Amino acid sequence: MTAVARHNVRGVHVLIDPGRVDPAHLPEFLAAVKAGGASVVQVRIKDGSTRSALAYLDLVLQYARPGLTVIVNDRVDWALAAHADGVHLGQEDLPVDVARRLAPHLVIGASVGSLSEWRAVQPHRPDYLGVGAVFATPSKSDAGAPIGVDGLRRIREAVPLDLPVIAIGGITGDNVGAVWEAGADGVAVIHAVTESPDPERAVRRLLRSGAR
Amino acid sequence: MTAVARHNVRGVHVLIDPGRVDPAHLPEFLAAVKAGGASVVQVRIKDGSTRSALAYLDLVLQYARPGLTVIVNDRVDWALAAHADGVHLGQEDLPVDVARRLAPHLVIGASVGSLSEWRAVQPHRPDYLGVGAVFATPSKSDAGAPIGVDGLRRIREAVPLDLPVIAIGGITGDNVGAVWEAGADGVAVIHAVTESPDPERAVRRLLRSGAR
Repeated sequence: MTAVARHNVRGVHVLIDPGRVDPAHLPEFLAAVKAGGASVVQVRIKDGSTRSALAYLDLVLQYARPGLTVIVNDRVDWALAAHADGVHLGQEDLPVDVARRLAPHLVIGASVGSLSEWRAVQPHRPDYLGVGAVFATPSKSDAGAPIGVDGLRRIREAVPLDLPVIAIGGITGDNVGAVWEAGADGVAVIHAVTESPDPERAVRRLLRSGAR
Repeated sequence: MTAVARHNVRGVHVLIDPGRVDPAHLPEFLAAVKAGGASVVQVRIKDGSTRSALAYLDLVLQYARPGLTVIVNDRVDWALAAHADGVHLGQEDLPVDVARRLAPHLVIGASVGSLSEWRAVQPHRPDYLGVGAVFATPSKSDAGAPIGVDGLRRIREAVPLDLPVIAIGGITGDNVGAVWEAGADGVAVIHAVTESPDPERAVRRLLRSGAR
């Protein structure tokens, strides 16, 4: 069974870091997003030492399992060291084929912002795609101009249906309906859940609006 | 044969990064340090993307071989992706035993600044130790108070003789004699070589003053 077949990466991905969800709140937060029906928690840490990142990842893994697939942004070494389930790779991170060589058992996601980026990554067979930014987002200043729901739909139509397309970028409970309608298999969010007073309800609202 | 047995890590380690030795100067610089008799080039990159780091590492490997062992600071994933020879781990980087699990074929060096740090890392069997900072150094503000030549000697006396001790921190052609005299098997330098108008001569001067 392939790595992705062992994990459900469709549905809601919640992106977290120690600044947004501090270690003391991880148990409560992860229980809430799990209860809301999230599938994946992605840990995206850009600052600090490897030791502090691994300590955070250990906590995430402890409270995420069972129920949530844990994916590490960018750092294949951290994903391997912490025994996470997968790694998500941006355009400037390790190439997918290299990451696969280093970590054949991990789920590997790849960021795609255009049809040409899809064509470039296609031969390397990622397990899922992160597609966006769909809408403008304050948390990723290097994400380029938003591709919109139409851009998402064009990429979804080009990508085989068995390769999950996870939409990312400015997605909220208010605009998620159009994202599902465009054919997304999942949505990845930061603010919509981490800044909600009720993360469980926030996840449920993202799913309720038409997840397939 | 173990990883370290295939590589000579005694002698002079030259630490470089794209800011100190830009890609255009790598061929000339690496030829010079090789001619001077250096054993190891360690690439220490703290900024920029993985893709740019891998591009730099590819160039270093192209011009370092044969003759120089190429070690990557901190990033086991980059060392594996680029097919480097080894990785050097600081106190806040991946633990040595975890790195060994991820990369059993790599030379693994570990930073040690005290006898207690040596005792903590000893069970994980690093292939060599980076010991320091011996002298005050401007390039590593988090290195703690210098241990001096006496501190280096105390660690050297506690460490088995078949485990190479590479002294680091503020070492120059002027003070290196006392470092060799204290029992170092090697010296790691940045400024003494990268800021020299004649890197070949700078390496030779470090060795000439009493390398074992």
